[in-house]
Amino acid sequence: MKTVNRFVPGLEGVIASETGISFLDTEQEKIIIRGHELIELSHERNYLEVLHLLLEGALPNAEEKEALETKLKGMYNLPDEIYHILKRLPKETHPMDALRTGISCLAGYDQNLEDTSVKANKERAYLMMAKLPALVANSYHILNGKEPIEPRADLSYSANFLYMITGEVPTDTEVKIFDKSLLLYSEHEMPNSTFTARVIASTLSDLYGALTGAVASLKGPLHGGANEAVMYSLREVDSAAGYEQYIMKKLKNKEKVMGFGHRVYMKKMDPRALVMKDALKQLCELKGDDKLLEMCEAGERVMEREIGIYPNLDYYAAPVYWLLNIPIPLYTPIFFGSRAAGLSAHVIEQHANNRLFRPRVQYVGESY
Amino acid sequence: MKTVNRFVPGLEGVIASETGISFLDTEQEKIIIRGHELIELSHERNYLEVLHLLLEGALPNAEEKEALETKLKGMYNLPDEIYHILKRLPKETHPMDALRTGISCLAGYDQNLEDTSVKANKERAYLMMAKLPALVANSYHILNGKEPIEPRADLSYSANFLYMITGEVPTDTEVKIFDKSLLLYSEHEMPNSTFTARVIASTLSDLYGALTGAVASLKGPLHGGANEAVMYSLREVDSAAGYEQYIMKKLKNKEKVMGFGHRVYMKKMDPRALVMKDALKQLCELKGDDKLLEMCEAGERVMEREIGIYPNLDYYAAPVYWLLNIPIPLYTPIFFGSRAAGLSAHVIEQHANNRLFRPRVQYVGESY
Ligand SMILES: CC(C)(COP(=O)(O)OP(=O)(O)OC[C@H]1O[C@@H](n2cnc3c(N)ncnc32)[C@H](O)[C@@H]1OP(=O)(O)O)[C@@H](O)C(=O)NCCC(=O)NCCS
Ligand SMILES: CC(C)(COP(=O)(O)OP(=O)(O)OC[C@H]1O[C@@H](n2cnc3c(N)ncnc32)[C@H](O)[C@@H]1OP(=O)(O)O)[C@@H](O)C(=O)NCCC(=O)NCCS
Repeated sequence: MKTVNRFVPGLEGVIASETGISFLDTEQEKIIIRGHELIELSHERNYLEVLHLLLEGALPNAEEKEALETKLKGMYNLPDEIYHILKRLPKETHPMDALRTGISCLAGYDQNLEDTSVKANKERAYLMMAKLPALVANSYHILNGKEPIEPRADLSYSANFLYMITGEVPTDTEVKIFDKSLLLYSEHEMPNSTFTARVIASTLSDLYGALTGAVASLKGPLHGGANEAVMYSLREVDSAAGYEQYIMKKLKNKEKVMGFGHRVYMKKMDPRALVMKDALKQLCELKGDDKLLEMCEAGERVMEREIGIYPNLDYYAAPVYWLLNIPIPLYTPIFFGSRAAGLSAHVIEQHANNRLFRPRVQYVGESY
Repeated sequence: MKTVNRFVPGLEGVIASETGISFLDTEQEKIIIRGHELIELSHERNYLEVLHLLLEGALPNAEEKEALETKLKGMYNLPDEIYHILKRLPKETHPMDALRTGISCLAGYDQNLEDTSVKANKERAYLMMAKLPALVANSYHILNGKEPIEPRADLSYSANFLYMITGEVPTDTEVKIFDKSLLLYSEHEMPNSTFTARVIASTLSDLYGALTGAVASLKGPLHGGANEAVMYSLREVDSAAGYEQYIMKKLKNKEKVMGFGHRVYMKKMDPRALVMKDALKQLCELKGDDKLLEMCEAGERVMEREIGIYPNLDYYAAPVYWLLNIPIPLYTPIFFGSRAAGLSAHVIEQHANNRLFRPRVQYVGESY
């Protein structure tokens, strides 16, 4: 067999694609999005501006920014049939599975699925971005026996998203922090879900299929599922000392502690986590209650001391979402809602310069 | 950046996994399934025996074979709600998208989704294999405004599958040929859909999610979608001379001719194609009409002469399915119904010895 490379489990360090979309520059400790630094963007821009950067290749001017928001607002609503379908799902359905089903169904409304041109894909991506807040929030409400919430076009994109989740119009501070979390989640080079989307797209299958697969990937506890797991453990122990004990026990049992570690950063703090940590500080201050911050810092210290592994974005996004009154089962669907921006950019890029992903294996089975 | 390998588009020749499930031995020109040769299996065994081999690691004895068929028969039916959901899909929905939605929905009926042990995964896989014939056939009937067909437990697995597709009890010859096609489609090392399933499973996401992503992958025209494309072009030209012209035109326009080529075989005939070609001969003889065979052979000759590229399994499966009276839009869903056997084996293997797939990129974007 002609193999060009030695086997590395999990394709660690293997270059899977050329991309102009993003890059984790670990030497310079920068997350690059189309030439811009993600952390700087998080201080200066909002989520929709980064969506524009991802899909159009440049940050929008004031006019383009407004046009984008107006365009999305015009497509917020889901077909009624989608709500009927969601109502038929077993109530025990995982919210990520309901989201996956919803996206899968939406494909049937696209009369132009075979057109994988940049133009058609971009329009599809905007449509998805417009509908994801309703799909994320209302699939959850429906699973909980509640009626869907109508989107509100008088609110900004992120304000409407948060409103549809909680049913309450959020404060400006809440919107700002939620928007920042979306921005930080929007794109991150080649994590498993992005890789999944590109692998699927490389058969020239469509954006809906690629996103459906990406939801399935992101659901996994080693990936997006981590933010929910973090919050469940913070709730379970409910004190800094308890959390420290909890982590020590996990480490003793050689179990992974959720919210820590990252294939690319691993022995360094995920720079996005620092931005969310600041947001957590701000929310704790407003609430006049530092407990969650203290717990998280205690966890951070133990992990640093014991195995030198640092928090990732999910670790600090979890308590931030908690203080924004977001139900825990929605943490990963929201992550997807945001990441769909980067995923769409990757599918567009893959279709525009395609080669089928088809690797080989090392056979270690029965001899013949 | 620390990269361990040079960039190869589409991961060509890159070892993505160790596996004991299957291997394309191009030196010996053998397709190995757990130590057995697929082509030999296709002459001596049936599809369910290969399913047993894939999931249990060994061919079944007579008792195990019967037990497996009985087990599957006991789980043939789909929850009624799935049919209600399928009825709500737009009638224009692609059958692969309806199948994807159906599998995605089924996850909600699994109360034990987080258990990714071999035991739990195997039970899940058998349940899927039992329900796929109904899902494949009836999602199509429903999209066409017809009522679902009830599975028949008095027929063999493959006979029932074909019966549910056509609504007619098939002859023994038809069952044998259809079963052989399922067997040949069941597993084939690391094609895009299998890779997709393993990438998703490596986040410790569940079998349903991995299969949902695999349907999306298989739908692509460069992958499973090819069998339908072949049949549409055979129908369009309807003569050997016309087909030759059609191919010459494609080649002149530098377009790909569907049903030809393969990342691993490319300059050789796919050995599975030969088995299906024999089946095509048999069906043409029974029908007393050789036209499809002649057309296919003409196509084979042109491609060999012009660019030295050979037919793959999809090329000969297409006319075989046509002569079995299978509607063209079901060719790829049936391929999936069969391949779910191999896909499940891969998900089980991935979960049992996991490392997250997370490669890197070569950044070619805006400088910073
Ligand atoms: C993200 C992650 C999958 C990256 O994994 P990876 O590159 O495959 O690294 P490995 O799992 O091989 O880990 C390397 C070593 O660090 C340890 N490690 C990594 N993350 C750890 C964690 N969160 N808790 C405890 N130990 C951890 C591993 O046990 C392993 O130790 P060993 O060499 O003694 O066996 C991994 O860090 C993890 O599972 N984290 C928890 C889940 C999570 O938060 N995911 C969200 C990521 S954004
Ligand atoms: C299966 C397939 C994707 C493998 O592709 P791959 O390993 O990525 O190979 P490439 O697409 O890079 O092809 C290599 C060369 O052969 C040519 N080629 C491959 N398959 C061809 C086909 N079916 N028709 C015409 N030319 C073909 C390519 O155009 C390319 O030529 P070039 O080097 O002059 O550009 C490819 O053969 C194909 O698209 N086939 C048609 C779809 C099909 O039948 N799929 C089912 C596969 S089981």
